[in-house]
Amino acid sequence: MKLVKLGGSVITDKSKLKTFRSSSCSRLAGELRPVRDVLTLVHGAGSYGHIEAKKHGLQNGLKSRAQLRHVAGVQRDVRELNLRVLETLIDNDVRAVSIPPAASAIFDRGEIKSFEPDPFQAMLDLGLTPVTFGDVVPDESMGFSICSGDLMMEALARAFEPEIVVFCADVDGVFDRDPKRNAGARLIREFDTASLKNLKRTESAHPDVTGSIYGKLERMLAIARHCEKCMIVNGNVPGRLQKAVSGRDVVSTVVIPG
Amino acid sequence: MKLVKLGGSVITDKSKLKTFRSSSCSRLAGELRPVRDVLTLVHGAGSYGHIEAKKHGLQNGLKSRAQLRHVAGVQRDVRELNLRVLETLIDNDVRAVSIPPAASAIFDRGEIKSFEPDPFQAMLDLGLTPVTFGDVVPDESMGFSICSGDLMMEALARAFEPEIVVFCADVDGVFDRDPKRNAGARLIREFDTASLKNLKRTESAHPDVTGSIYGKLERMLAIARHCEKCMIVNGNVPGRLQKAVSGRDVVSTVVIPG
Repeated sequence: MKLVKLGGSVITDKSKLKTFRSSSCSRLAGELRPVRDVLTLVHGAGSYGHIEAKKHGLQNGLKSRAQLRHVAGVQRDVRELNLRVLETLIDNDVRAVSIPPAASAIFDRGEIKSFEPDPFQAMLDLGLTPVTFGDVVPDESMGFSICSGDLMMEALARAFEPEIVVFCADVDGVFDRDPKRNAGARLIREFDTASLKNLKRTESAHPDVTGSIYGKLERMLAIARHCEKCMIVNGNVPGRLQKAVSGRDVVSTVVIPG
Repeated sequence: MKLVKLGGSVITDKSKLKTFRSSSCSRLAGELRPVRDVLTLVHGAGSYGHIEAKKHGLQNGLKSRAQLRHVAGVQRDVRELNLRVLETLIDNDVRAVSIPPAASAIFDRGEIKSFEPDPFQAMLDLGLTPVTFGDVVPDESMGFSICSGDLMMEALARAFEPEIVVFCADVDGVFDRDPKRNAGARLIREFDTASLKNLKRTESAHPDVTGSIYGKLERMLAIARHCEKCMIVNGNVPGRLQKAVSGRDVVSTVVIPG
C-alpha cells in the first residue's frame, strides 16, 4: 500500500477561510492516478478546519455548551472540503471513497485509543481509494478533540506497514531554517532524530511555529519505523508527488527512522 | 431518544437527479429544533442516490470493475446531499453531525450483520444530533450493497428502543390504495400485520412499486416492536412533524406491532 497525505496548506489557502485550491488538487489527483489501486489518502483540514476550530478553542475539548454549535459547524466544513477532494479525485479517475476518522478510531486525550483498519481494508479490497481527513472527533475524556491528518497517517502506517509514505507539503521538505524567512535555508535530504535535535536549537525563538513543526516531525520519525520509505515532497511543484509515489528520484526529504 | 426519518421524497425531488428541496428541508429542521437534544436523524438518498445506483445496478452488488467508478460517484453524491441536510439543520440551530452507515455497521447480503451504537451514543451524550443516511456500503458477500435509510432506522430502533419513531413521507400515511392514483383512497389510521395482508391483495397488480412499499411496511412493523410509538406523517404539510415528535395528535398512520 502507498499512503499519501495531501497537506492542508497544499489543497487550501490556509490564510483564507474555506478556500479550496482546486487546480492544485486536480493536478495532484492526476499524479496519483497511476497508483490508485494501492493507494490510501489522508488530507488536512486547512482553512476549512483550523481557523474556526482555533477561534472556538475546540483543540482544548469541551469547556462550554456554546462550543457544540461550532463542533457541528467545523465538522460540516471539513466534510465540505472532503467532498471537494472526493469530487476532484473522481474527476481524475481515482475512485475515492470517504472514511471519516471516527468511523475507524476511538479517541481519548487527543490521541487514538484504538484503531480498526477493516473499513480501509474493505475499500482497498474492492479496488477503491479510501480517503480520510483531519476532523473534530468525539473524545472519551475531553468530550471532543481534534484528530489531525497526521494522527491518522500514523495509525494507518502502523496498521498497514506501507511500501511508501509521502507527505505532500508546500515546501521542498525539511530545511535547517524556516525557508520562508531565510533565503539561505538548506534542504535536509535525510532527516533523522539527530536532525530534529539540531533544528530544536536553531528555531527555539519561534515556539508556536516550531512547536507544531516539531510535533509533526516527531510523528514522521515514528511513522518512518512502519514503512519502507517515508518522505516529504513539495506538492506545489508539478510531477514531484508522482515521482515520489512511483519510487523515482525526486527533490525531497527522506525521513530516516530513529 | 426520538428517531426521525426524513424521506428521500421529502428532502429531494426524486424524479430529477440531485435536486435538493431546500425550503422543505429548512422548515422540517425548524420543526425538529425543540427536540434536538434527544434526536437521531436518518435521511434517504432520494435523487442523489437511487437514479445513478439503479442505472449501474449497484443494488445487485459487484458484477464488474466498471461499477467501481459509480460506487465512488454515488457515495460522493449522497454525501453531497448529507452536507446540504447538515447545513440546513445547523442553520436552524440543530447541532447535526454526520455518521455514515459504514461507520457503525458491517454489512452482508444486503443486510446489517452487526451494528455498533457507540458512535451515535457518543454524539448524543455530547448533546449533538447524529445524522445517518442511505448509502452504498461495503458488503462482505456482495462486494458492496445498498444500505437504505430504513435499514439504519431498524438498527437504531433495536439498539436505542426510542420513545418515538417518525417516518416523514410525502403522503399523509399508509392508504388502502395508492393515494396518488386513486382519489377515493382512505388513510389507514392504525396499521398492523392484518392491514399489510389486505394491502397485498389490493395492489398486487403493481409488483415493482408494491414490492418496495411492502418491504418498507414490513420493516416498519418490525421497528414498531422496538419503540413506544411508531408513526408515518406527511412532511409536506407544515407542523405535522413537530406535532408528531412532541407527542401531540396529528394526521398520521400509527404502526401497531404484530
